Amino acid sequence: MGIKERIDRANEEVIRRLLDSRPVWVDVQKAVDVVPGMTPILILHSGPPIEWGRMCFVQRESVIGAALFEGLAKTPEEAKERVAAGEIQLAPCHAHSSVGAMTGVTSASMAVFCIENPPFGTKGFCKVVERKLQFGVRTPEVLENLHWMAEELGPALGQAVRRLGGVELKPIIAQALHMGDECHNRNVAATALLLRTLAPELVDAAEPRRLRRILQYFQEVDQAFLGLAMAAGKSMGDAAHGVRDSSVVTAMARNGVEFGIRVSGLGDRWFTGEAQAIDGAFLPGFSAADATPDIGDSTITETIGLGGMAMANALTASAIAGGRAEDAIRRVRENMEITAGRSRSFTLPVMDFEGTPVGIDVRRVVETGILPIILTGIASNKPGGGRIGGGVVRPPMEAFVRAVRALAEQVGVLS
Amino acid sequence: MGIKERIDRANEEVIRRLLDSRPVWVDVQKAVDVVPGMTPILILHSGPPIEWGRMCFVQRESVIGAALFEGLAKTPEEAKERVAAGEIQLAPCHAHSSVGAMTGVTSASMAVFCIENPPFGTKGFCKVVERKLQFGVRTPEVLENLHWMAEELGPALGQAVRRLGGVELKPIIAQALHMGDECHNRNVAATALLLRTLAPELVDAAEPRRLRRILQYFQEVDQAFLGLAMAAGKSMGDAAHGVRDSSVVTAMARNGVEFGIRVSGLGDRWFTGEAQAIDGAFLPGFSAADATPDIGDSTITETIGLGGMAMANALTASAIAGGRAEDAIRRVRENMEITAGRSRSFTLPVMDFEGTPVGIDVRRVVETGILPIILTGIASNKPGGGRIGGGVVRPPMEAFVRAVRALAEQVGVLS
Repeated sequence: MGIKERIDRANEEVIRRLLDSRPVWVDVQKAVDVVPGMTPILILHSGPPIEWGRMCFVQRESVIGAALFEGLAKTPEEAKERVAAGEIQLAPCHAHSSVGAMTGVTSASMAVFCIENPPFGTKGFCKVVERKLQFGVRTPEVLENLHWMAEELGPALGQAVRRLGGVELKPIIAQALHMGDECHNRNVAATALLLRTLAPELVDAAEPRRLRRILQYFQEVDQAFLGLAMAAGKSMGDAAHGVRDSSVVTAMARNGVEFGIRVSGLGDRWFTGEAQAIDGAFLPGFSAADATPDIGDSTITETIGLGGMAMANALTASAIAGGRAEDAIRRVRENMEITAGRSRSFTLPVMDFEGTPVGIDVRRVVETGILPIILTGIASNKPGGGRIGGGVVRPPMEAFVRAVRALAEQVGVLS
Repeated sequence: MGIKERIDRANEEVIRRLLDSRPVWVDVQKAVDVVPGMTPILILHSGPPIEWGRMCFVQRESVIGAALFEGLAKTPEEAKERVAAGEIQLAPCHAHSSVGAMTGVTSASMAVFCIENPPFGTKGFCKVVERKLQFGVRTPEVLENLHWMAEELGPALGQAVRRLGGVELKPIIAQALHMGDECHNRNVAATALLLRTLAPELVDAAEPRRLRRILQYFQEVDQAFLGLAMAAGKSMGDAAHGVRDSSVVTAMARNGVEFGIRVSGLGDRWFTGEAQAIDGAFLPGFSAADATPDIGDSTITETIGLGGMAMANALTASAIAGGRAEDAIRRVRENMEITAGRSRSFTLPVMDFEGTPVGIDVRRVVETGILPIILTGIASNKPGGGRIGGGVVRPPMEAFVRAVRALAEQVGVLS
């Protein structure tokens, strides 16, 4: 069997694993109680590994906020000193079966969604979605909200989902994709469907006087479902990882400095390039000059056939980025050229229910010059800025070229 | 000014009223307490006026069920006798500021959505959605459920919406149209958004031990929002009604025997033709032979730019009827040829956010031969059958020809 056939066969197995995955939301717990390797002094971040000194401003701000939230430091200055001294440790979410949106900062006491993927025994964790610390905002109100999430929201959600015996996520995602979501930048349908599923159980899971605020959370956080989609994606990506010779991407992640990919057949190495500027729609008063480059683990959604790969379903979100319906369709069709498979579960009504493109093949990216399309939020690069917009970004080609080169070396094409 | 210009100007005013309408859901009450002219012995039905002896089977079954529910009769036989004797009276919903889905049967004690349209002072009422009696099913369980809706669900919804100070319906409809609904056959997004809006208020509006079943209602009844869309439509159609010389349709309704339209410039007359067979997808075990012809007031949605007029948004629903994306777009585009305006609020993402066609002009229907496209449910024609499918139907041309002839007589074209 030639090298191309060996890689193609390996990729078929990767696609099989992605398609046969069955992510189930089973619980909500504090990170330290469930996330593998989590400790009270460990703070997880998004993207490929990065040391404190090279981190972008908002990611550092989030780390400081998490240190204050955990009581690991009393002041921002003390937090910085303790991180710099290694008394507070840093690690990528991806190294701990986890993913984190934007800065991705996750610490021991934070409530995390727990996802299992029974056919493959993998797990995925993602912080219950909040929309401030993850953009680098760390005011007292933000930390208070994190405490409420850890002490009240998280336990209620956990009890509700346990009462339901778990919630299968593919059916909700599949339905939401037919309701204008692509489940990366837009999750309003999935979030509303999730609330509909949970609401009766929450009545029994939360004290009446606490129930109102919990239900309001789902009104205020349209993106609540994103954490579940991302953790599902992590459980699927890890299931697909480690197939010898495969050239399919099993994770894409950014830390605002570097964009990195992991490839199924290439072990735990990250292949990186510079994090790119986002072509986006900015909130009033903000411009590209205020933007942190591409950041967050949420690109796990594009890795499994959601987000940009499903953007023709989310024409409203696409419109925000300035596109027309035919542009969104063309971009999805284009991305079908660089993937090794098509989803069976995630389909595109406007394209007569074709499956979304799944399984980015680094070979095809380099051959065709077509880069995966990513829909994403935009974080400020200034104190207190938070989320300043959303848009479309392409990863750096360099990451894919490096991966192809590594694969070629591994299979013996290059010396 | 020539006759054509007079009619065109009148139609502009009708379109203005449809577009400037602002339907607000303000309350839920028992019909007898709010519906104009409602009495304890009156039972409302869908469609143009029809006497007991000519009613189709399922509509008669619903009337019998309502009589039993109200305690107006102890047995089906007694109900039939009392209706035939005029001791129980019948009238069209439309004559009482109301609309009713499928058989449309609404009686004094039933809970109704109350909608106001402040810019024009019109109102609209529609029974809180249930999915059995309206299809002619009248088992003890169905009647028990109606009692629960009247005694528990309705009051809780009423209290929740009053606490919110009313809920503007156009924004919810507009958003749901971008989430795969057309708000006639498909309301799953609107229903989920509605629950999200109501849930925190329901915590205070319902006793904890009753809250769970109320929240479950929104899981079980994807079409819950349809009653609000229909009552909104009635308040809009009535606002647009009564503009001298206008050729625009302000109501379309069917009773399973006749399809009828009312036209803004032609008073309260109904122009009718035979109710048509629905080209539909049937549930397993059912076929066209089991189907009641086109029935229900829900075509008020097509009258105001929803339903079939927005079908390119609901490709999943369209797919059920066997169409491709391009077919749904073509059908909407075709219906743009017979309408006098376009919605500003209700838009079509897949058609780059064009407004849906609004205001069916009977002249253009007759000139072009294009009939409005209607998405609708299908009722059984047999005892206990209930809902047996959904599909697409066109009204009879005859109704439009009669309306054009009446308009021509009125404006003096014909002698």
